[in-house]
Amino acid sequence: MPSTLTPLNPAVAQTFAPPVMQARRWLDGVSFPPDRPLLNLSQAAPVDPPPLPLRQAIADAVLNTPQTHLYGPVLGMPALRAALAARTTQIYGGSVRADQVAITSGCNQAFAAVIATLAGAGDEVIVPVPWYFNHKMWLEMSGIRAVPLSTLPPNPAQGLIPDPEHAATLITPRTRAIALVSPNNPAGVEYPAPLLAAFRDLARRHGLALIVDETYRDFHSQEGAPHALFTDPAWDDTLIHLYSFSKAYRLTGHRVGAIVASPARLSEVEKFLDTVTICPTGLGQTAALWGLTHLDEWLAGERLEILRRRVAIAAGFETLPGWRLLGSGAYFAYVEHPFDAPSAEVAQWLVRAAQVLVLPGSMFMPQDGSTDTGARHLRVAFANADTAGIAKLIERLSELQP
Amino acid sequence: MPSTLTPLNPAVAQTFAPPVMQARRWLDGVSFPPDRPLLNLSQAAPVDPPPLPLRQAIADAVLNTPQTHLYGPVLGMPALRAALAARTTQIYGGSVRADQVAITSGCNQAFAAVIATLAGAGDEVIVPVPWYFNHKMWLEMSGIRAVPLSTLPPNPAQGLIPDPEHAATLITPRTRAIALVSPNNPAGVEYPAPLLAAFRDLARRHGLALIVDETYRDFHSQEGAPHALFTDPAWDDTLIHLYSFSKAYRLTGHRVGAIVASPARLSEVEKFLDTVTICPTGLGQTAALWGLTHLDEWLAGERLEILRRRVAIAAGFETLPGWRLLGSGAYFAYVEHPFDAPSAEVAQWLVRAAQVLVLPGSMFMPQDGSTDTGARHLRVAFANADTAGIAKLIERLSELQP
Repeated sequence: MPSTLTPLNPAVAQTFAPPVMQARRWLDGVSFPPDRPLLNLSQAAPVDPPPLPLRQAIADAVLNTPQTHLYGPVLGMPALRAALAARTTQIYGGSVRADQVAITSGCNQAFAAVIATLAGAGDEVIVPVPWYFNHKMWLEMSGIRAVPLSTLPPNPAQGLIPDPEHAATLITPRTRAIALVSPNNPAGVEYPAPLLAAFRDLARRHGLALIVDETYRDFHSQEGAPHALFTDPAWDDTLIHLYSFSKAYRLTGHRVGAIVASPARLSEVEKFLDTVTICPTGLGQTAALWGLTHLDEWLAGERLEILRRRVAIAAGFETLPGWRLLGSGAYFAYVEHPFDAPSAEVAQWLVRAAQVLVLPGSMFMPQDGSTDTGARHLRVAFANADTAGIAKLIERLSELQP
Repeated sequence: MPSTLTPLNPAVAQTFAPPVMQARRWLDGVSFPPDRPLLNLSQAAPVDPPPLPLRQAIADAVLNTPQTHLYGPVLGMPALRAALAARTTQIYGGSVRADQVAITSGCNQAFAAVIATLAGAGDEVIVPVPWYFNHKMWLEMSGIRAVPLSTLPPNPAQGLIPDPEHAATLITPRTRAIALVSPNNPAGVEYPAPLLAAFRDLARRHGLALIVDETYRDFHSQEGAPHALFTDPAWDDTLIHLYSFSKAYRLTGHRVGAIVASPARLSEVEKFLDTVTICPTGLGQTAALWGLTHLDEWLAGERLEILRRRVAIAAGFETLPGWRLLGSGAYFAYVEHPFDAPSAEVAQWLVRAAQVLVLPGSMFMPQDGSTDTGARHLRVAFANADTAGIAKLIERLSELQP
């Protein structure tokens, strides 16, 4: 139903409503039997709070560090910027300095801020499809065209991996950036290091920015650096790396993310952040810094647990007739379902039929016929369930009749 | 120096750098004698942390309420939305419901979000001059023209109060909103209730939104409702009210603000907030709710203290030859200085000459000659100093030779 609201910015009006909030509304009025509680696999969000010592460190700052309650620098606490610079160098090699790091109020804000500095109404940004819906929403609200780079048949690249040569054909005089997410949301796939280097070369050749959102990098299946982009001494002429503390330390409710980019880019980012939030929160930054300096071993254990869940998901879908696992990794499995109905209907039906909440592929794709519409796809945020929960998911899906 | 950064969104590039961060840089390399520490009156920010019982309530939530560490609803915690709706009704009369309230990550974000829903590139928003610089920055970065409504001579209205009849002459087919701040930042003045009603009528007649940012309403000099806009049963067809918890409960480092508007407007706002921060922080909202339900008496005392400081500022400037107090109220005094130099130079010089940091009028005005340029104006955020600090400010200024 079109809104009668006035005045109304058409770019915002035409943007879809927040998918996770839409999906939450599917639960309204549904009751679940005590022995069949809802399996909520809709949002990539840890279900438990941060470990107790981290909570104690936050509580200590609340009571004993007055500064954490007050405004701080727009680009973040110097100590946290320095610590993340050191950690980035340690993981990826090369050399990242504190003045190449900005702290943001979550990684969505990191994306919004860098896009604002790169592009305006009428410009274009190339994004692989299926895309992360909040990226698409921000581009659309900004009047920027999200140019879909399909990773699905019949397009050139397969296996949910975008093809740089295909991307090259989409570049126009209005293109400003290529925005990748690896490990990918929603597809789960990890982009190989040489692929990322090829995208960097393509972007540099055309004077574009290459944005790589690595929100899920702490759960990468590969040991060591996921790519070598930072070892290029001139990395910051092209690369903009995004990170989130939300998943690593279970800080989703604190809103702490980061941008790693050139100091000149961050000077522009500072204008956006100042105007949109003034500064990241003192407590969120305190928590992130404490995590970075105390939780390496704990996080390594978290990663192994997520990798175990990934194995359980792959094994589980293997047993389900008609279902197909298209991609999996980090927090997500991207699957094809066997039902003859649009995925949005299937996802809503699964709430009552299987007590399972997942998101339909249609939320991650253009619906204008320019690419696959995601009609048979579902995103399963499996990281939210332990292996027993994953076993329940597979069992419930196995009971359904296609 | 023009940036050589590419790609670069020109709308962001042309926007000025965050004024408070610029001013902080004036302190670089300056040392202050032990008996003359810096008087920092640049930012409207409480210098002390929240009262201990509030900090204890936050610490308790950190340790005992797991949910505060996790994602919450995009538009805020239902309990906080309901509590602010009740408080708004209590203060202003009329009737405000919880579904007319959204919680944001600070009041700057509230402004950014509502503007995004109202206007896009090429549209216009009317703003009184001097303006709040973050409002101007957000409009400029969005490609929206901030149409200056001067409140200074030789323009029609005097005393830093905008004139609705003058505003009417500025409305064009591209106008989407009129954005007021009362009590005003930077001018300190409180807009009278009939003036706000006249602006509401003007906005409604032309199908515009009337944004009223009341970040400083808890420090209004008048007892009772500062205006009657909410008593109009149809208020939400035109009025968008913005609020901040930052000043009332000293929560600047927590980023909690609010929008009061129609549910249809908030549905559009939800898209912006989801994409830019996902949700306000759990702890910030916990703190705001605790403040709303426990700190009425304490806040009443805070208000009286700010009103005492306002009296001290007025009395102090009275004694300074060549200085003129143009407006004062809430956290700010807006003054004319006696020096023959641009205000930006004067403000920088005051750091070394008087150990005082204030912001120049040029930061609050267009510099294109369309209005007064603020060449002799300074904004003094006097709420940051106690009456002894204000006495020191006046003493230091009195020692300067014009």
